[in-house]
Amino acid sequence: MNPETKLAHLKRLLTEYSDLVDTIGLLDWDMETYMPPGGSSGRGFQKATISRIAHLKLTSGEMGKLLEELISYEEELDPDSDDARLIRKANRLYKKKSKVPADLAADIAKATSDAYYVWVRARENSNFSEFQPALERILDLKRQLANCFQPFDHIYDPLLDDYEPGLKTADVQQIFASLRPEQVNLLQAITQRPQVDDSFLHQDFEEKAQWQFGVKVITDFGYDWNRGRQDLTAHPFTQDIGLGDVRITTRVMNDYLPSAFFSTTHESGHAIYSQGMDRNLDRTPLAQGASYAINESQSRMYENIIGRSRHFWLHYYPELQSLFPAQLSQVPLDMFYKAINKVKPSFIRVEADEATYNMHIMMRLELEIALLEGSLEVRDLPEAWNSSMHEYLGLTPPNDAMGVLQDVHWSQGYFGYFSTYALGNLIAAQLWERMEEDLPDVFEQIGRGQFSDLTAWMREKVHRHGAKYEPQELVQRITGSKIDQRPYMRYLTNKYTEIYQL
Amino acid sequence: MNPETKLAHLKRLLTEYSDLVDTIGLLDWDMETYMPPGGSSGRGFQKATISRIAHLKLTSGEMGKLLEELISYEEELDPDSDDARLIRKANRLYKKKSKVPADLAADIAKATSDAYYVWVRARENSNFSEFQPALERILDLKRQLANCFQPFDHIYDPLLDDYEPGLKTADVQQIFASLRPEQVNLLQAITQRPQVDDSFLHQDFEEKAQWQFGVKVITDFGYDWNRGRQDLTAHPFTQDIGLGDVRITTRVMNDYLPSAFFSTTHESGHAIYSQGMDRNLDRTPLAQGASYAINESQSRMYENIIGRSRHFWLHYYPELQSLFPAQLSQVPLDMFYKAINKVKPSFIRVEADEATYNMHIMMRLELEIALLEGSLEVRDLPEAWNSSMHEYLGLTPPNDAMGVLQDVHWSQGYFGYFSTYALGNLIAAQLWERMEEDLPDVFEQIGRGQFSDLTAWMREKVHRHGAKYEPQELVQRITGSKIDQRPYMRYLTNKYTEIYQL
Repeated sequence: MNPETKLAHLKRLLTEYSDLVDTIGLLDWDMETYMPPGGSSGRGFQKATISRIAHLKLTSGEMGKLLEELISYEEELDPDSDDARLIRKANRLYKKKSKVPADLAADIAKATSDAYYVWVRARENSNFSEFQPALERILDLKRQLANCFQPFDHIYDPLLDDYEPGLKTADVQQIFASLRPEQVNLLQAITQRPQVDDSFLHQDFEEKAQWQFGVKVITDFGYDWNRGRQDLTAHPFTQDIGLGDVRITTRVMNDYLPSAFFSTTHESGHAIYSQGMDRNLDRTPLAQGASYAINESQSRMYENIIGRSRHFWLHYYPELQSLFPAQLSQVPLDMFYKAINKVKPSFIRVEADEATYNMHIMMRLELEIALLEGSLEVRDLPEAWNSSMHEYLGLTPPNDAMGVLQDVHWSQGYFGYFSTYALGNLIAAQLWERMEEDLPDVFEQIGRGQFSDLTAWMREKVHRHGAKYEPQELVQRITGSKIDQRPYMRYLTNKYTEIYQL
Repeated sequence: MNPETKLAHLKRLLTEYSDLVDTIGLLDWDMETYMPPGGSSGRGFQKATISRIAHLKLTSGEMGKLLEELISYEEELDPDSDDARLIRKANRLYKKKSKVPADLAADIAKATSDAYYVWVRARENSNFSEFQPALERILDLKRQLANCFQPFDHIYDPLLDDYEPGLKTADVQQIFASLRPEQVNLLQAITQRPQVDDSFLHQDFEEKAQWQFGVKVITDFGYDWNRGRQDLTAHPFTQDIGLGDVRITTRVMNDYLPSAFFSTTHESGHAIYSQGMDRNLDRTPLAQGASYAINESQSRMYENIIGRSRHFWLHYYPELQSLFPAQLSQVPLDMFYKAINKVKPSFIRVEADEATYNMHIMMRLELEIALLEGSLEVRDLPEAWNSSMHEYLGLTPPNDAMGVLQDVHWSQGYFGYFSTYALGNLIAAQLWERMEEDLPDVFEQIGRGQFSDLTAWMREKVHRHGAKYEPQELVQRITGSKIDQRPYMRYLTNKYTEIYQL
């Protein structure tokens, strides 16, 4: 076989693998949206079976042999070509998956599946000790998993790499070390100023009108309904089922206006990313975000940089007022703008504002690393959590549910995931600064409800490439430097200096 | 390996196969309900990949070897045990699938997939000649398929067997030969009587109220919403995604009351069948109806024998009137009952009443057999159709869309399917007669809105067994005789003698 034939063969294997991954996407989406309760046991089996088959396809001897034979061919190709990047990506996936013994992978799947309901109950009872044995088991398995990838600089590296290909623990620590004092200073300055009133956001807002307003806005953003849809779920998410079918979900709270709107705009950012990928990448492992942080940069951008900007509301606030005249006609734009940007340290990450959000992440990274290194025992985690919470935000959680048990991630073995949220914030601001050089009037456009130039810019620079580049490489190509906290701090400082008159 | 270990191994392979089949069920359901248009190309690939993997699992050398080794073990088991029946069913499936060359299976998949849109356009244009080449190709492939199963009594046998395991063409021809003159006599008697007025069924009926009424009734029937749901689709269907998740769909016509109600009750019959299967059969090839006809017997029973009975409406008509007072308060029960049972020969099968429905089927069976035998050429099919239509129902279709192009089945290669609709009618009446011996007051119960005894009877005799027995065997076990047209003719004759005062 010549290399071209081998490459064609590789692509055939990868399309099958991608079809399986897309199918798992539908099994997941349906589970959260329309599956009747009686389907849950069967769904677990269906997902396990398809996942196992996908894993076997990816780690087959056939795949390994092809990839080995194609390595030298890849070096002859244009390094930026789809083919070269596909071979490289497939090689990376193959190596990451095939180094993990099947028994260990099965143990992790079982342990995290069991742990989910243990975590749900422990959170309901606000009792960490109920969850402790499950978490100890998961941590032990994740350590074993990391150790499959010896040698490494840090045991946390292989876990982080699942979410941020190529990024090292030391890189994130360095970024966060620079970020932390600046975030602390800004927060201190803000909290010394008078509080913002956002009580009017807590009124009765008709759900259908909320839904329609969100739909209108993301349609303007460029979300393509021909290749997507929106449904209601308990926790909003975006699900790709191939590039032609990118679905989002939201939740609508009758008594709190921002929830549905910012969920919808957030998820639309993820979805517009996927919808903007080059269709030639469909049914390959390149048809996904470059990393979790790059993906989050897009959702945060539409949610926060755009959706919480003054220019955005210059255009959309009159429309929102006309939908809810009783609730908003007496609320001036400035008051509304400040309310949706109110800063207040709080216990729960998912409710955090832009100025405190990264604090929640930085403390989680420290705890995760300490757990992996073994310098922190699981049984001591609640105490460490509370003391960290006090250190970062000056708050002490009243109970475990409001503290260490609030997030599902650890019950699912997602060690390495949290950082991507903060990195996404940083990257969003970094890309935005660079974009403003090319589109200096972008905020004026937003003030007229026009998003086509900015979406086109993101499509050209970010979206169309899918996962062809690793996150640091992509950010470097676009902005000229690696992931950097300074643009985000400039963005936050400018915004809050004006709002809080710092 | 001892036989018990081999059996456990077989079961493991079959659960994987069943998980794949259930997953295809979800891919299909989603395609008809919520998939955005942009997903259709990807969905085709996902279905093809999962189907190919399922086929390979079922026809693997490992499967074949296990089954061969387990044949003698099966003979030692209680022949009615789940294990014996599972081995037998798996063996049957394996033989049916493994005798078909992969190329032929792929050709059929491709040809039918292509033909669907050709048929849609040809029907739109009411022009059979546009569809003719595609149908010729499919017929040729289906003949090749049938010939993989030489020797046979009749070339139609292997095709029929896909829907009615164990049933022969000669069996169906014999049943229909007895049925036909009786149906013709009854229809002649009816058409000599004054026509029934059903014009009041064509008014404006609010869709939500129609939906709620259907939901109420099938909840009373025993449809389990914890293991199901109902959605809207262009063509109503029932989809199993495992025994814990049995979904139905309906369509609601604003200007014609019977459509939604009888769709919903029809599909609920299919679904109550699946929901009533022994849960031990889940994730095996026994977790399905014994055959298409047995499945149809359950849907026809809830739709017609129950849903079009006078006793049923004694209980439910006041409720329906209270939902639609403007439309129905002046319509007495007797008039309503006659209207929903009105007999009128018509062109379209899916709109046919109980007295003419089987005519549509009998003529299709004759045409299919003639096509397979080669005594009828595809190009002569429209003429044959029209002359057959005239012979059976005294009607000549005004065009191909109202005639030979009306049904999707042939474009999908479903030769052998149509008979199952008529056989389902016969079996429904046959089971019902037997049930009335055990539950002589069943219609009095229905008149009180009580269905638990009859559903329990069906569950015990039919539902719980899933596909353990072949259709003739199952009917014989329950009623003491094989499929027989006489109960259905007694049922029709009694009903219409009263309605039309024959």
